[in-house]
Amino acid sequence: MKPAKAVVLLSGGMDSATVLAIARAQGFEVYALSVAYGQRHTSELAAAARLAVSLGAAAHKVVNIDLRSIGGSALTDDIDVPEHGGDGIPVTYVPARNTIMLSVALGWAEVLGAGDIFCGVNAVDYSGYPDCRPEFVEAFEKLANLATKAAVEGHGLRVQAPLIQLSKADIVRRGIELGVDFAETVSCYQADAEGRACGHCDACRLRAAGFEAAGVADPTRYFG
Amino acid sequence: MKPAKAVVLLSGGMDSATVLAIARAQGFEVYALSVAYGQRHTSELAAAARLAVSLGAAAHKVVNIDLRSIGGSALTDDIDVPEHGGDGIPVTYVPARNTIMLSVALGWAEVLGAGDIFCGVNAVDYSGYPDCRPEFVEAFEKLANLATKAAVEGHGLRVQAPLIQLSKADIVRRGIELGVDFAETVSCYQADAEGRACGHCDACRLRAAGFEAAGVADPTRYFG
Repeated sequence: MKPAKAVVLLSGGMDSATVLAIARAQGFEVYALSVAYGQRHTSELAAAARLAVSLGAAAHKVVNIDLRSIGGSALTDDIDVPEHGGDGIPVTYVPARNTIMLSVALGWAEVLGAGDIFCGVNAVDYSGYPDCRPEFVEAFEKLANLATKAAVEGHGLRVQAPLIQLSKADIVRRGIELGVDFAETVSCYQADAEGRACGHCDACRLRAAGFEAAGVADPTRYFG
Repeated sequence: MKPAKAVVLLSGGMDSATVLAIARAQGFEVYALSVAYGQRHTSELAAAARLAVSLGAAAHKVVNIDLRSIGGSALTDDIDVPEHGGDGIPVTYVPARNTIMLSVALGWAEVLGAGDIFCGVNAVDYSGYPDCRPEFVEAFEKLANLATKAAVEGHGLRVQAPLIQLSKADIVRRGIELGVDFAETVSCYQADAEGRACGHCDACRLRAAGFEAAGVADPTRYFG
């Protein structure tokens, strides 16, 4: 029997790398999808390409969507990335990003005949983004099952978010268990061209705290 | 009081042009959004730009998303556009297209602080696409209200599909009532660079039948 196909959203960060490893461990043939949305940290995409190979994806695709044209985020606009999040939704929030990325994943899943979409959203250390909550993932799964041929032809689509209730430390432990080399991953919002991290932004602070809480040496390379 | 803002998905076809006119008639300040998804019929986008001006949009934006890279449709791939739909979902269906376009509209609505998103989906003469049904629109509205700052900050988002239960003839009548010049619109799946239509594809046939049923002279220019 041929293995079932899954589309995995792969940003190049530690969370989505762990998700890819989880999907592989579940026996899926993995189609890794990166969405280039005009983000500052293009070294994330280079990391995604390397991770897709090292973690055994069957294919890796980058879809370009120019979200800079709609603006509204420090990750796509000329707004300074803050060193700490503050209250409420941070300026690094990209409007509707997860909705858009999951939509593209849904399109590719349909073309491939894949029944599963994996994403790395996380409701614990989630920086306050609204589209990282379990109810968001459930609503997207419902939508997916109405939006597509799967809906009409009877086979369902699952949207899996295996990290959603894990702490960053849990993610570190799970990833290491599954052979993820976190040195290959890039989390920093303003990583340099070589994928080295600033050490100060929200993503860097969450990542470093995760390694510390897991009791694992942090392999991150910093430029600071 | 400043008028409320709405994002209107504008393809350049007759349906979305009518939707824009409806949103304006409801008093909204309209932000027209076209998504360039690698479609064959780029003359649709030129039509959208003209319609945004003639129908009084406050702004028009084109967001590029390269859906050709995921494939799976006669509208983005090198598959011949068929002259009649046949049974089931036609090859002109673009996987997850409406989900993706609404997601981008959602992102822009968030940036603008718009509370309404309008789209031209239609469940009557709908060519058999799953993402043109009322339950799809309702599911997207639910998702939108979980996905965004609006969800967290308490003001809601509405997804309006005012054509959803109208026949093509009803759309023609409504558009003319509101001053839409249908000669400016392009519906054909394989329109030429000047926006002239083939007269044979599904979109052309539905459009021509709509004018006929409405008893209105068809202003479409054909190249055939």
